[in-house]
Amino acid sequence: MHEIHATDVTVLGLGAMGSALAETLVKAGVRTTVWNRSAGRAQALVAQGAREAAHAAEAVRASPLVVVCLFDHDSVHEVLDPLVDDLAGRTLVNLTTTTPEQARRSALWAAEAQIAYLDGGIMAVPSMIGQPGASILYSGSQKVFRHHASLFEHWATSTYVDEDAGLASLYDFALLSAMYVMFAGFMQGAAMLAPAGIPASRFAAMAAPWLTAMTGELAGYAEVIDGGDYTVPGQQSLTFSHLGLFIEAIADQGVSPEPIAMVQRLIQQQVDAGHGTEGFARIIESLKHPGN
Amino acid sequence: MHEIHATDVTVLGLGAMGSALAETLVKAGVRTTVWNRSAGRAQALVAQGAREAAHAAEAVRASPLVVVCLFDHDSVHEVLDPLVDDLAGRTLVNLTTTTPEQARRSALWAAEAQIAYLDGGIMAVPSMIGQPGASILYSGSQKVFRHHASLFEHWATSTYVDEDAGLASLYDFALLSAMYVMFAGFMQGAAMLAPAGIPASRFAAMAAPWLTAMTGELAGYAEVIDGGDYTVPGQQSLTFSHLGLFIEAIADQGVSPEPIAMVQRLIQQQVDAGHGTEGFARIIESLKHPGN
Repeated sequence: MHEIHATDVTVLGLGAMGSALAETLVKAGVRTTVWNRSAGRAQALVAQGAREAAHAAEAVRASPLVVVCLFDHDSVHEVLDPLVDDLAGRTLVNLTTTTPEQARRSALWAAEAQIAYLDGGIMAVPSMIGQPGASILYSGSQKVFRHHASLFEHWATSTYVDEDAGLASLYDFALLSAMYVMFAGFMQGAAMLAPAGIPASRFAAMAAPWLTAMTGELAGYAEVIDGGDYTVPGQQSLTFSHLGLFIEAIADQGVSPEPIAMVQRLIQQQVDAGHGTEGFARIIESLKHPGN
Repeated sequence: MHEIHATDVTVLGLGAMGSALAETLVKAGVRTTVWNRSAGRAQALVAQGAREAAHAAEAVRASPLVVVCLFDHDSVHEVLDPLVDDLAGRTLVNLTTTTPEQARRSALWAAEAQIAYLDGGIMAVPSMIGQPGASILYSGSQKVFRHHASLFEHWATSTYVDEDAGLASLYDFALLSAMYVMFAGFMQGAAMLAPAGIPASRFAAMAAPWLTAMTGELAGYAEVIDGGDYTVPGQQSLTFSHLGLFIEAIADQGVSPEPIAMVQRLIQQQVDAGHGTEGFARIIESLKHPGN
């Protein structure tokens, strides 16, 4: 019989991220039970001191706190729906990447089954878990967050955002989307310079400090957006921001202008609607009201 | 008769940027002659000590160094082509925003007319000129750059990139494109959070340090790109980077997923070509070879 301690943790799902989460706990001295749907993923963790459960039900019963990091929302419910009776009275921390709507559905499902539920959005790649720079956002039960906050710090800087379980995912997706879009912009620049024989590494050395400096503009755009008046003086106008010359210069290099052409479409939609003299921040309206 | 000193400077074009450039020189004690095609733009500068020329020819003749910051490439040649005889033997620094190809054409034109030519790409908005953080890239005559480097430092941190006059513009466009694309990614995140009542300023406070941290990934991508092997272990695969869930989550909020959908198209093109197991950096191939 496996003796259960209040500080024991179970981790379901041993993909790259789940394994990183479990390993960090094991190294921190937490009694950790692990399980993965397909076999053969637990060996390294067991060698480090984790206990492998034979099946998901055994894994859930092994600890008062169950952490899930599975492939997607459907995987979570395929594994956990048959185990609601075992989960009742326990705490579930769902670090699986899901949409905000999916996180809210899981929170409702958990509430009906008497499961304390916290959703998390991981702002890190697996290799960053347990290292400086990793961040995890949490939403749902604030009581669960407070109770386990010091445990969560083993993984990453932990921030609680809201009782609405969907908000960690919403912030997560908003931040990760911004990152992926930034990466595409970098790739376009590197692609433009390649025909001139300029290595991507030379561009990266210029782009990283440049983009960092330009994040300093975001607060100003946000102030205009929150103020709701895009005619505030001192802004770069939409007409002035016309990116036709950029598109031409990129196409001149034989490179796809798709990233910058996307920005120009957002600008053009506002110019066409008669807002050309207003500030660049107004492109958010093209995203907020895609039909207009 | 206006007496000419070796350190005198003429600035042609008094839009927001040209005015900022001229004002910085005047404040630095440089004898500055200014001219603008349409009247009434020079008053503030004259009050600060600039001299206004009655026409472009007089402005060109007033100084050995002529700085142009006009609307576009065509404006530059409309103003300067009739003045080639006056410009012969002088130095022309063209800070007008042009494509690399246009900069190269201007350099050829200048060489034929015995005009020493330097092209510049301004990495700043007008209000940043003369302030920390502003940067100007130069290409073309290295001799001109060296001779006037200390003057240029009044405007911004000055970097000489290449004898090829088109390269300052190429770097400029690559960096500015990356910036605009990053801004669009930020706007998409802010638009996603708005329906949940989260102010853009709250998102900006999270996005600025997050995107800054993520610029740390650019050097790694560049290393993979320059190495030419997208199968190097340890990378996030293109298949894993599938952004379908992001597009769904954004559409769930009633927001246009256009920025992230652009990134997904770059990913999908490589996955469709059979490279799904290779690293994310491979999306640059979708830009380098838009037809494939």
